Amino acid sequence: MPALKRTAILLISCPDRPGLVSSVSTFIGNHKGNIVYLDQHVDEENGAFFMRIEWEMDGFELSEEQLNSKFNLEIASESEMTWQLHYNDQPPRAAIFVTKEGHCLYDLLSRHESGELNIQIPLIISNHDSLKQVADRFGIPFHQFSINKENKADQESAEISVLKEHNVDTVILARYMQILSDNFVNHFPNQIINIHHSFLPAFAGARPYHQAYQRGVKLIGATSHYVTADLDEGPIIAQDVIRVTHRESLSDFIRHGRDLEKIVLSRGVWAHSQRKVLVLKNKTVVFS
Amino acid sequence: MPALKRTAILLISCPDRPGLVSSVSTFIGNHKGNIVYLDQHVDEENGAFFMRIEWEMDGFELSEEQLNSKFNLEIASESEMTWQLHYNDQPPRAAIFVTKEGHCLYDLLSRHESGELNIQIPLIISNHDSLKQVADRFGIPFHQFSINKENKADQESAEISVLKEHNVDTVILARYMQILSDNFVNHFPNQIINIHHSFLPAFAGARPYHQAYQRGVKLIGATSHYVTADLDEGPIIAQDVIRVTHRESLSDFIRHGRDLEKIVLSRGVWAHSQRKVLVLKNKTVVFS
Amino acid sequence: MPALKRTAILLISCPDRPGLVSSVSTFIGNHKGNIVYLDQHVDEENGAFFMRIEWEMDGFELSEEQLNSKFNLEIASESEMTWQLHYNDQPPRAAIFVTKEGHCLYDLLSRHESGELNIQIPLIISNHDSLKQVADRFGIPFHQFSINKENKADQESAEISVLKEHNVDTVILARYMQILSDNFVNHFPNQIINIHHSFLPAFAGARPYHQAYQRGVKLIGATSHYVTADLDEGPIIAQDVIRVTHRESLSDFIRHGRDLEKIVLSRGVWAHSQRKVLVLKNKTVVFS
Amino acid sequence: MPALKRTAILLISCPDRPGLVSSVSTFIGNHKGNIVYLDQHVDEENGAFFMRIEWEMDGFELSEEQLNSKFNLEIASESEMTWQLHYNDQPPRAAIFVTKEGHCLYDLLSRHESGELNIQIPLIISNHDSLKQVADRFGIPFHQFSINKENKADQESAEISVLKEHNVDTVILARYMQILSDNFVNHFPNQIINIHHSFLPAFAGARPYHQAYQRGVKLIGATSHYVTADLDEGPIIAQDVIRVTHRESLSDFIRHGRDLEKIVLSRGVWAHSQRKVLVLKNKTVVFS
Repeated sequence: MPALKRTAILLISCPDRPGLVSSVSTFIGNHKGNIVYLDQHVDEENGAFFMRIEWEMDGFELSEEQLNSKFNLEIASESEMTWQLHYNDQPPRAAIFVTKEGHCLYDLLSRHESGELNIQIPLIISNHDSLKQVADRFGIPFHQFSINKENKADQESAEISVLKEHNVDTVILARYMQILSDNFVNHFPNQIINIHHSFLPAFAGARPYHQAYQRGVKLIGATSHYVTADLDEGPIIAQDVIRVTHRESLSDFIRHGRDLEKIVLSRGVWAHSQRKVLVLKNKTVVFS
Repeated sequence: MPALKRTAILLISCPDRPGLVSSVSTFIGNHKGNIVYLDQHVDEENGAFFMRIEWEMDGFELSEEQLNSKFNLEIASESEMTWQLHYNDQPPRAAIFVTKEGHCLYDLLSRHESGELNIQIPLIISNHDSLKQVADRFGIPFHQFSINKENKADQESAEISVLKEHNVDTVILARYMQILSDNFVNHFPNQIINIHHSFLPAFAGARPYHQAYQRGVKLIGATSHYVTADLDEGPIIAQDVIRVTHRESLSDFIRHGRDLEKIVLSRGVWAHSQRKVLVLKNKTVVFS
Repeated sequence: MPALKRTAILLISCPDRPGLVSSVSTFIGNHKGNIVYLDQHVDEENGAFFMRIEWEMDGFELSEEQLNSKFNLEIASESEMTWQLHYNDQPPRAAIFVTKEGHCLYDLLSRHESGELNIQIPLIISNHDSLKQVADRFGIPFHQFSINKENKADQESAEISVLKEHNVDTVILARYMQILSDNFVNHFPNQIINIHHSFLPAFAGARPYHQAYQRGVKLIGATSHYVTADLDEGPIIAQDVIRVTHRESLSDFIRHGRDLEKIVLSRGVWAHSQRKVLVLKNKTVVFS
Repeated sequence: MPALKRTAILLISCPDRPGLVSSVSTFIGNHKGNIVYLDQHVDEENGAFFMRIEWEMDGFELSEEQLNSKFNLEIASESEMTWQLHYNDQPPRAAIFVTKEGHCLYDLLSRHESGELNIQIPLIISNHDSLKQVADRFGIPFHQFSINKENKADQESAEISVLKEHNVDTVILARYMQILSDNFVNHFPNQIINIHHSFLPAFAGARPYHQAYQRGVKLIGATSHYVTADLDEGPIIAQDVIRVTHRESLSDFIRHGRDLEKIVLSRGVWAHSQRKVLVLKNKTVVFS
């Protein structure tokens, strides 16, 4: 793989009005930024405008600081923009949370190792020790925080401290079988990605494959979403399903489901890592 | 298409025990039935056995009456079998119920006309007159029963009378926008096929595309199922989904959804018409 | 359905360069056009830029003639643009070509009748009389042109005359079982939409389901594409597949395939009718 | 996971005739085998019968040797059966062949480690050293055989020796970028599973994603198949596709394709490991 050129990525959301694409792209162009990606979306229902624009820093006239202040002054403030600026060489720093099932963890780590996922993984956190050896194999620090009713608040505080210490900005719940408290969630708004093993909103909550099997559905699914205070209700990033018949047993559901979980979680993490996801209320725009 | 050979189709369900396949197939074979289809399924959880066996009547030694009594006496009674006997030249007699949207109706009628669907359609029933011209084009009697709160029970009774008069044994709800009473449903147990425009159990009830759009799902679906007294809770026969993104508007959901509805309803009706569906509790076995 | 507002649709392709989106959208905006759709695509490999922009004519300051000349003068010529201008109240005038199988025809006609497809269908052409009654039911003129080796050139000339007479700009091959001559194809460049019953490029040519069955594939597909002089080699607009197993017979392939053909052809026709398809070399951009 | 009960698995193919299911299942039953799985298939075109039957060895009256001889004598010979007998505690011994890309290897190894894949993996073979560290992490011996035109025959002979030495009966080509000679293939008939990164028969041969990108397809796929002397022409075990649009670049094709390759290869290996695949001519029966 050739070395990637350094780029800046600007994510914008604001009330829709004419001329937004033009004003932003002209601003970048005027400062000699070579635009390599531009996509936008208008949510008609909410009158909301979303945009992702990426350009090469090589030859761009503004420093990071100048870019921040000038863009704010000249473009963002008059259009009431909410905006984030990222650089492709400053990828998300993600902690992976796991419990006992390793398929999503392996999948993420092998994608990371191959360079497919542009993230840094400073640590893995678990409430069990089952997957420590997987972390060891990949040389990633493994932190165990056993959780029970009594210690949950304290352990979460300890986790948050470790995460802050490692400058973690993204939490990936790779089949982590604990419900995070509202307090924890509030520390990472739209930064915690969960995989739920059903096509939400069907079969929210515990044991979705069992629920699906009891209901006799002909499709099973998986959903990756940002975690909010409402369990399994956060903005959906990716979903997929596969077909099942009466021939599939519950254990077949679970086996096929693992494939879905891996793929759907990694799609969510990939989009997040590429700075391609914007959230409005409880919905996502996922640029392609 | 060549003329089909006359066949008998036997559908069996009973408690699982060894030797069931052998005893049934030996019975047919001993009476010189040439078996052209045999499939069976064991539901491990419920200890239940299901079987579909089809054989040519040409050369078969038993008359329909003899078959009924001998099979019952020699095979079915000792294994506590529930069984149905059908003949491929006595297809289901189906009434199609519609309201205003014609896509499923057109789809069913054109499949019927091409010979794809082995059903008879003695009549179409609607609570509106919008689709009368479609019925007229295909030369199928159209009966209108306007429904309101006051007349619902009476109109349903009148509908039931008409259905019985026409020896209807199958009711297809092809986007019929009225909820059938329990009384009506009880007249046609596992004989009413509905199309619901979501991947149930998600988005049961009214306006599922609106619900799906609000929730921000990345897949929309459709479900065909037998109607029971519990709305949208009956045994699922077929389901399918298609992918959507933030680019699709609510009207795109509805447009794509029509394709799903047509296909998924017709799959359900096809399986039913081929006598390939068996029901246990709230789940189906759909033989291929 | 509410009456649609009158809109203009501009389709552009040209060599990629900075500022294209900005210059076009500014031009429309300056003349008080309210933009309701804007999407663009850059084909990196070919350095090609594609754009679809749609705006309301209500309040727009330029007449159709003024728009043509001014856009050409001020924008298009300097950027070497190839462009088309359409209006949503001047939909494609499409002739549907059929042979004996009616499923795609019924599907198109019922979509047309429901208002889903914004096209006019002045006539149906066939080399057989089998589907005349379908045309009659929908009140659409049916023209039969029997084709054999001897008369093919003459019959095609006659067809072209009829098509020109009816101002037909789009030809839909809805399971038309004749190969069009190069001469015919050249009269309608990227205006003839065919449905091929395989996932091209697999199983081009005759009897694709038989080929698929012999090869033992686990998926069957359908492809809608523009027709070019090279059989089954034209630019692909839409494709889809469904899963099959060893249980499916050849006739099951054909039955499932009909569903694919209907859906995939109508997706192609819909995109074409919405002026959402642009062609570069042998590939399409299909805006969403 | 509870300890699995020991079972025997019998795979049968023979000319179709009445009574085959009955005679085999009666034979097992008479010797007190508790049947836990029975599926059969009739290939009408070839008049061929296929069956997979599995029963618990606990309580079964025949030893392995007695079973072999008695089944042959009493059942198999008179029906001209080709048959294989397997035991679930004697899983396939598989060598994984790789080159530089690790996604399929990681996927197989993590499935193996979690117990999902009932295979033994005595060694990994590669023509490069890139993935040695992956083998090391999982503690599996890694053998490197560099291949060039001059040494190919010798190196393959050496590979075959190593495989025989380790009692390998299954070869998994997990993105192995060398073409095996006919001689090698003939040592492992229907025992070499390859993953090809297209929906065969489209895009056989080299660089299928490049071919797909050039052709402008709207779906990309992957195929797992048994390797025969004809490159990419062997019996297909599993296939899957995902949708792409003009927005996806070639590198997106490759990235999405890796997910397909992992899933489709593992489905093929799973079915093979469960002794669920039977081959007739160039097609497979894959029992569910």
